[in-house]
Amino acid sequence: MTETITGEPANSPHPLSRARAEQHDRDDPLALMRRRFDLPGGLIYLDGNSLGALPRGVAARLGEVTRHEWGDKLIAGWWQGWMDLPRQTGARIAPLIGADPDHVIACDSTSLNLYKLAAAALLARPDRSVILSDADNFPTDLYMFEGLSTLMGKAVELRTVPRAAIMDHLTTDVALLSLSHVDYRTAEQWDMAALTHAAHKVGALSLWDLSHSAGAVAVDLAGAQADMAVGCGYKFLNGGPGAPAYLYVAPDLCNTLVNPLSGWMGHQAPFDFAPRYQPAEGIDRFACGTPPVLGLAALDRALEVFADVDLPALYAKGQALCALFLALTKDLPGICALSPAKDIPRGCHVALSHRQAKTIMAQLASRGVVGDFRPPDVMRFGFSALYCRYVDVWDAAHALALEIGKSEDGLSDNQAHPSPPHPAP
Amino acid sequence: MTETITGEPANSPHPLSRARAEQHDRDDPLALMRRRFDLPGGLIYLDGNSLGALPRGVAARLGEVTRHEWGDKLIAGWWQGWMDLPRQTGARIAPLIGADPDHVIACDSTSLNLYKLAAAALLARPDRSVILSDADNFPTDLYMFEGLSTLMGKAVELRTVPRAAIMDHLTTDVALLSLSHVDYRTAEQWDMAALTHAAHKVGALSLWDLSHSAGAVAVDLAGAQADMAVGCGYKFLNGGPGAPAYLYVAPDLCNTLVNPLSGWMGHQAPFDFAPRYQPAEGIDRFACGTPPVLGLAALDRALEVFADVDLPALYAKGQALCALFLALTKDLPGICALSPAKDIPRGCHVALSHRQAKTIMAQLASRGVVGDFRPPDVMRFGFSALYCRYVDVWDAAHALALEIGKSEDGLSDNQAHPSPPHPAP
Repeated sequence: MTETITGEPANSPHPLSRARAEQHDRDDPLALMRRRFDLPGGLIYLDGNSLGALPRGVAARLGEVTRHEWGDKLIAGWWQGWMDLPRQTGARIAPLIGADPDHVIACDSTSLNLYKLAAAALLARPDRSVILSDADNFPTDLYMFEGLSTLMGKAVELRTVPRAAIMDHLTTDVALLSLSHVDYRTAEQWDMAALTHAAHKVGALSLWDLSHSAGAVAVDLAGAQADMAVGCGYKFLNGGPGAPAYLYVAPDLCNTLVNPLSGWMGHQAPFDFAPRYQPAEGIDRFACGTPPVLGLAALDRALEVFADVDLPALYAKGQALCALFLALTKDLPGICALSPAKDIPRGCHVALSHRQAKTIMAQLASRGVVGDFRPPDVMRFGFSALYCRYVDVWDAAHALALEIGKSEDGLSDNQAHPSPPHPAP
Repeated sequence: MTETITGEPANSPHPLSRARAEQHDRDDPLALMRRRFDLPGGLIYLDGNSLGALPRGVAARLGEVTRHEWGDKLIAGWWQGWMDLPRQTGARIAPLIGADPDHVIACDSTSLNLYKLAAAALLARPDRSVILSDADNFPTDLYMFEGLSTLMGKAVELRTVPRAAIMDHLTTDVALLSLSHVDYRTAEQWDMAALTHAAHKVGALSLWDLSHSAGAVAVDLAGAQADMAVGCGYKFLNGGPGAPAYLYVAPDLCNTLVNPLSGWMGHQAPFDFAPRYQPAEGIDRFACGTPPVLGLAALDRALEVFADVDLPALYAKGQALCALFLALTKDLPGICALSPAKDIPRGCHVALSHRQAKTIMAQLASRGVVGDFRPPDVMRFGFSALYCRYVDVWDAAHALALEIGKSEDGLSDNQAHPSPPHPAP
């Protein structure tokens, strides 16, 4: 923890004491951001990496779009703002991922956007068949590529290899390298620029899943020369349960890639009702069906939270929260940290393993400390720096220590516990 | 119009008089249904076939799901109702389309659901390559099949033929016959049972787009032995702008068809995070990404309107409204009815063509009569029997007559008009 603190007065409290955590909160220039969220009292919410908390203003915006736009304007609503939502929302995401606003669009789900772009990559590399990915990539990423392979037969081979072996498998038969920038379990981060460069060297395209990155850690798609990216709206972007996802395509590819999910909203002139598909210019061609206005309006409003945030300070705070939690839990009995230690880039969540992880997470939840459990033995704690406090980290670590103490005292894995946490999207 | 009225007293007003329309409204057993909607005053809304009006209770439900479920329950919301929404909403749609509740799921967009099922049909008929459709089918249906063909190359041939030639082209190379049950322009209706039977006779599967049917006309998927169907949530189902769509797969195909858009929500055990895709049993395998909770909650609540509605009475009223409008407009100068006359099955909207359609629709809108315009010269009027009155039909026809009179008086097509109606989803 000490690596994040400089110029400590000689008599300051112990770096790992609750008093020091309180002091950090007092000194935190982002502390007021918490007021932008409606958080339930008495809860330490460390699952913003699964579902972000409710930003203030979203419920009111939904009331407005429902009563005053849908209710009063009816069909005219489409031309008084709704049609702009996919691009407008995409433009709000752009600064969080290092992209030009004209190259991001909010649409569909992460899964579907992965399919669109992976298929587009294969069509752009007709002499190649391999999609290369990490065997521990998020399951839906792999499932969508598997579906593409089911449909296209021998034209697509999904090659999944251990994380450490990715570079060795970047061969000239690879059409697409697709990775999650931040690992959903361990929070390990790929070096996006290095991997993209390596992909380009063998003539492959790169596709990045930013679901656990955007809003949590610095992402620089343009700087890394990444070709394509997707991400979800409901984690660190706080867009609500099942919020629309987004996708990015680099400027040099935007008008050449072909989206096979060629719905009418990706057409050059959807309201001409032409019999043949003609893709729109630019990022619009990656849209598909009618935009989901309610979900987009919520996500769009939620993203306003980020408009004036000092992003480097936000990312630094996120890392400091994770570092504090790792420091506070590293010596707990039976605990093994799966997330990288200091100086290794990581996301904004921490994964710990413990033999009785499931039981412990259930007990923590009943104490008002909400993280999540990933089979078989992983406890995940997400630290959304917009609304998470240092003192929350301290209290959560303290509660975890108490539960682990109990479990070491002989609590069996088979004992009945109320409401074991159920993994959720 | 007289065909819908029986036992008229000898002194009753003229069948096409406004007094008779008022009398129909007084006698209408469904008249109170209009109170279930929040309709803006002073508007005759005849575009519910594009975007259904706002049902009362939907705004409150969205407030509840946002503030009390997302805001207060956070991640726990998934296991306190949200995960059930796709199937629960599908089950509410089932009685409107003649389906078993276990075989309908609300998910994604109509376009994406068409793609899933068309691809599944092609995988189920590996020795065939043809998707047969009507050249005047809704554009996104054709665009999605075109995208499938772009991706699969020679394995897919999209064959579009004139409506009248469909039967002649149902040959043994057809894998899939895909039609819109009700034509989005003319409201013509296909005989679903006869066409499905003909498709089966040549070994093809059938896929029906019910976007302009569900909630408007009787649909009997099971009775017609239809194989698959899709439809949208925002027209006669009143689910809100860009509401989630739905899909149906017949019981005998549910566990054999393969969904190539194989996202994690279609997995047998999504939260096992298994490396390989294993499809769920039944209709769940046709889900893909994380369910859009806000949109689903709105659609789910909107469908409650139908729960106690006498459906045969609703469909009969819809036909009567259309018949009245056709009778009132048939002799207007320059008007040509594109929709079928009486005794020919049609949907719940009416299409008329006129040389100055665009101008006329703009003028009607400025008088508070909202229909829509489809290029080049089509005026469309939708009659949602839940909230549309006979007197609305009469007043709309009267307003149309006045506008046509003006246009016949020499109003040029090139004259500037305020806010010409822009086609919308």
